[in-house]
Amino acid sequence: MKQSVIRSAEILCVGTELLIGDIVNTNAAYLSRRLAALGIGVYRQSVVGDNSKRLAEDLRSALDRVDLVVTSGGLGPTYDDLTKETAAAVFGREMTLHEASLARIERYFAESGRVMTDNNRKQAMMPEGAAVFPNDYGTAPALALVREDGKTLVMLPGPPRELEPIFREQVEPFLHERCDAILFSRNIHIAGLGESAVENALPKELLDSTNPTLAPYCTAGEVRLRVTAKARDEQGAKALCDAMIDRIQATAVAPYIYGIDIPSPEAALLAALQERCLTVATAESCTGGLIAKRLTDVAGCSAVVAGGAVTYQTREKTAILGVPSELIERCSVVSAEVAEAMARGALDRFATDLAIATTGYAGPGGGTERDPVGTVYIAVATRDTVQSRRLSLSPGRDRAYIRTVAATNAILDAWRLLKK
Amino acid sequence: MKQSVIRSAEILCVGTELLIGDIVNTNAAYLSRRLAALGIGVYRQSVVGDNSKRLAEDLRSALDRVDLVVTSGGLGPTYDDLTKETAAAVFGREMTLHEASLARIERYFAESGRVMTDNNRKQAMMPEGAAVFPNDYGTAPALALVREDGKTLVMLPGPPRELEPIFREQVEPFLHERCDAILFSRNIHIAGLGESAVENALPKELLDSTNPTLAPYCTAGEVRLRVTAKARDEQGAKALCDAMIDRIQATAVAPYIYGIDIPSPEAALLAALQERCLTVATAESCTGGLIAKRLTDVAGCSAVVAGGAVTYQTREKTAILGVPSELIERCSVVSAEVAEAMARGALDRFATDLAIATTGYAGPGGGTERDPVGTVYIAVATRDTVQSRRLSLSPGRDRAYIRTVAATNAILDAWRLLKK
Repeated sequence: MKQSVIRSAEILCVGTELLIGDIVNTNAAYLSRRLAALGIGVYRQSVVGDNSKRLAEDLRSALDRVDLVVTSGGLGPTYDDLTKETAAAVFGREMTLHEASLARIERYFAESGRVMTDNNRKQAMMPEGAAVFPNDYGTAPALALVREDGKTLVMLPGPPRELEPIFREQVEPFLHERCDAILFSRNIHIAGLGESAVENALPKELLDSTNPTLAPYCTAGEVRLRVTAKARDEQGAKALCDAMIDRIQATAVAPYIYGIDIPSPEAALLAALQERCLTVATAESCTGGLIAKRLTDVAGCSAVVAGGAVTYQTREKTAILGVPSELIERCSVVSAEVAEAMARGALDRFATDLAIATTGYAGPGGGTERDPVGTVYIAVATRDTVQSRRLSLSPGRDRAYIRTVAATNAILDAWRLLKK
Repeated sequence: MKQSVIRSAEILCVGTELLIGDIVNTNAAYLSRRLAALGIGVYRQSVVGDNSKRLAEDLRSALDRVDLVVTSGGLGPTYDDLTKETAAAVFGREMTLHEASLARIERYFAESGRVMTDNNRKQAMMPEGAAVFPNDYGTAPALALVREDGKTLVMLPGPPRELEPIFREQVEPFLHERCDAILFSRNIHIAGLGESAVENALPKELLDSTNPTLAPYCTAGEVRLRVTAKARDEQGAKALCDAMIDRIQATAVAPYIYGIDIPSPEAALLAALQERCLTVATAESCTGGLIAKRLTDVAGCSAVVAGGAVTYQTREKTAILGVPSELIERCSVVSAEVAEAMARGALDRFATDLAIATTGYAGPGGGTERDPVGTVYIAVATRDTVQSRRLSLSPGRDRAYIRTVAATNAILDAWRLLKK
């Protein structure tokens, strides 16, 4: 078998649910990013339905054009899952039972206490000569076929929670041996500065640099600057990235950087708390549990997260957090004073070192002339200090956006207070 | 010009930013959904880079295969925006200045106070004979070309906030005259039964039905069955769907159906609470605020959601919810008894009619021999009754999955209790 270098790829996603627009194709973007990191250029992404004839045609023509074809979907147990069978026909291979996969699938069902139906055996049938990548996140294994001329087909299960770890953990090492350069990225996380402000604060030669490249990405309440370098190996690429990061740390952007390669604001906050052996509690009104949810998304959070109160109703702010009803009447339930009292209440009730509170109007209903929908008061309290601020988002923003940006800002306010 | 019926389509998205995975292709899903509703079957979605030669080849072969090709992207002012020019070459048309579009673009810049650069004139150049759809949301107009044989090409700008309203407001009426049937879908929401179990419980003739069609979709803790019918008008299609739904309601799947055309389990629960004028509170350990977050995702939830406690630490379960520490010591903090006591505590502290509680091991750390990672106790309490159950997910599942499925099950347990 020829172990030729892989430089070009196409992505072929299989699934009628994509073609009818029932789900958005996040797999294509994920695979494109990861292949780019291996130095493999993606020339085309396609989506076809669960139709064996059309899939066979597309597989054949893609294999004519590029070195590598990656498919997602159509590996499941049901009658309309036919990627493997079609690929076997295209490669001229027989389907045979893969004993190790069958044993894994049987164990998977035994452990989860569910009954394994007959159609699940189908997921252990493989084209002869396939490299099989076991699936630790579901039942359908991934697989690869390599043709005599070195052209390669990788088939992945459709659900992103299965596809992503299998690709990262098993397919990347499999492909890596056949790549002649690698791309390596580092991410600079910025909050408190918009995308154009970030671009304006950076020298033009950094923005125009070709190796490493610099690309800004904007998400709710945050800007991420991605630095990507190409080199023979990771060490060389990393050195190029780090030199670029040092230059950015010397610009006006520096004070707004809250982390490098940090998965999220909550991860930054939890790391800062852990470092200092401090604990945190939340007191949420308009964010309704979102901050607590995000803090407890992080594995190992139990060392620092005590808990939190969701006091969605005014009455609960008094009953659960001890906010004086007189204060609420005087200042309004959406006010800096009430946010601060909620934070102090959480600090007290949960006996923590730090507390984060929010109260605001996430819409679509509610709001006042002083504080329209999109207004959120954020407070952060420690044993020594309490601080608050008013976040004002444009009224055109929807409920989910307002809640997400408020939570992100509250978490980063707490992080900044600790960093002081 | 032939005004032939349009039955089949392909979607061709143009943009290097999609090919390198920088952005997720939401346009393809949006266009597929809208075309399906017009009774137009989408046979393929493709993404190509900003490369005129490859785009021309793809346009030609797509126009051979289907009645309609819809493109997104490549209509902007810069040198690498070349969709219109490529289409003009494929259709054998000259590019000419479209005066009305130029006037609109000039007005757009004048009104937004920005300077119109020369390259913006490019956006007013159109292939001869194009139908032009003005863009009220940006600068690049959309356009359509119809070939002698009736084959049609629609070109849309790339940004979703421009593409979506232009398509809905102008392109749909343009296409509607040439459609001979519409599709209509209804969704049956199922929980407590896996995808293969749902399929096994349904008669084969329902699964094989071609009008309506039946398609299962699996997400964490849920299965959705989509019923799609084709007919001359919505009324006819809806009748076909409803007859299919009646037949499914007579199968073994029926007890697991929690709603028809309901956006989420939390929406089902909130609707049931609102109907009965009841209120709800949460008491969360391992789900850490996720249930409260999901209940408060729903606009208008403030009529029924009082609040909730996130008692992540053992101490807080006693301090905030009044769970006896003796009970925790005797039964373990992850137990049915503690889940029930948490639910009763929330009912009492928040003075609600219903309370939902969770305690379990979401991993990756923790767990005992009796209750490994993936075990979650769920309790639901009302003034009259408290019930609990043990949810056991396979240990291979990650933290996010375990928390999502636990929250979904807890929300649906509460919904089922209300429905009794």
